[in-house]
Amino acid sequence: MKYLHTMVRVSDLEQSLDFYCNKLGLRELRRHDHEAGRFTLVFLAAPGDEMAQVELTHNWDESGYDGGRNFGHLAYAVEDIYEACQRLMDAGVTINRPPRDGRMAFVRSPDGISIELLQRGQALPPREPWTSMPNVGQW
Amino acid sequence: MKYLHTMVRVSDLEQSLDFYCNKLGLRELRRHDHEAGRFTLVFLAAPGDEMAQVELTHNWDESGYDGGRNFGHLAYAVEDIYEACQRLMDAGVTINRPPRDGRMAFVRSPDGISIELLQRGQALPPREPWTSMPNVGQW
Repeated sequence: MKYLHTMVRVSDLEQSLDFYCNKLGLRELRRHDHEAGRFTLVFLAAPGDEMAQVELTHNWDESGYDGGRNFGHLAYAVEDIYEACQRLMDAGVTINRPPRDGRMAFVRSPDGISIELLQRGQALPPREPWTSMPNVGQW
Repeated sequence: MKYLHTMVRVSDLEQSLDFYCNKLGLRELRRHDHEAGRFTLVFLAAPGDEMAQVELTHNWDESGYDGGRNFGHLAYAVEDIYEACQRLMDAGVTINRPPRDGRMAFVRSPDGISIELLQRGQALPPREPWTSMPNVGQW
């Protein structure tokens, strides 16, 4: 298990990059523009500390976040996402976003903090019971 | 500059440790009980990835967080906290919690995400204009 990033939502990408990079001193590592989903992801890190990243999520059609939506989630890579989710389920944790794709799952902390689990390396082959498992609530 | 931790507030420490450690698989690294301030800090990390930590803040007399108060802040160590704050101020960023103690400062991202800056190593000797600088708002 390895820490990957903390995701925060930003309403104005340029203003946020100005803050996080120009002002705070983080560096942009990579950027993904998703035309279809109308969002942009930008990954930042402190210079020389590229393993611990902040992910900025900019949804093109949203503006302004309140009620805690500015904070997104903590993300961790796991060795086996099915095993990780099974262990969480066995422990009574709701899998809000099951790993139907063998790659990504979301759960929530008792205080509603979203935790993203990502399969390390390649996605695992789709497998039941995950393939048929519906989403539960939000994350 | 180096990533230290992401802080989240928790309303029930035992329930949260059960989630983050027993269920999610993080490990408790250290714990500080502050009787006077009536709060407990617990630092967690993925096994083998101790440099990237999650800090749980449990205020003994608070219960339940909404409006985004469950998310606390991102924290970074800096080489010189006065230089870092001066650079931010020069760039037009409000120093919500100036480093009066030569050790700790807080600013906010454009979307209100709190960013904690911590002096690497020992605190610097107190110095003006920081010593007389008042807090601004919350962080």
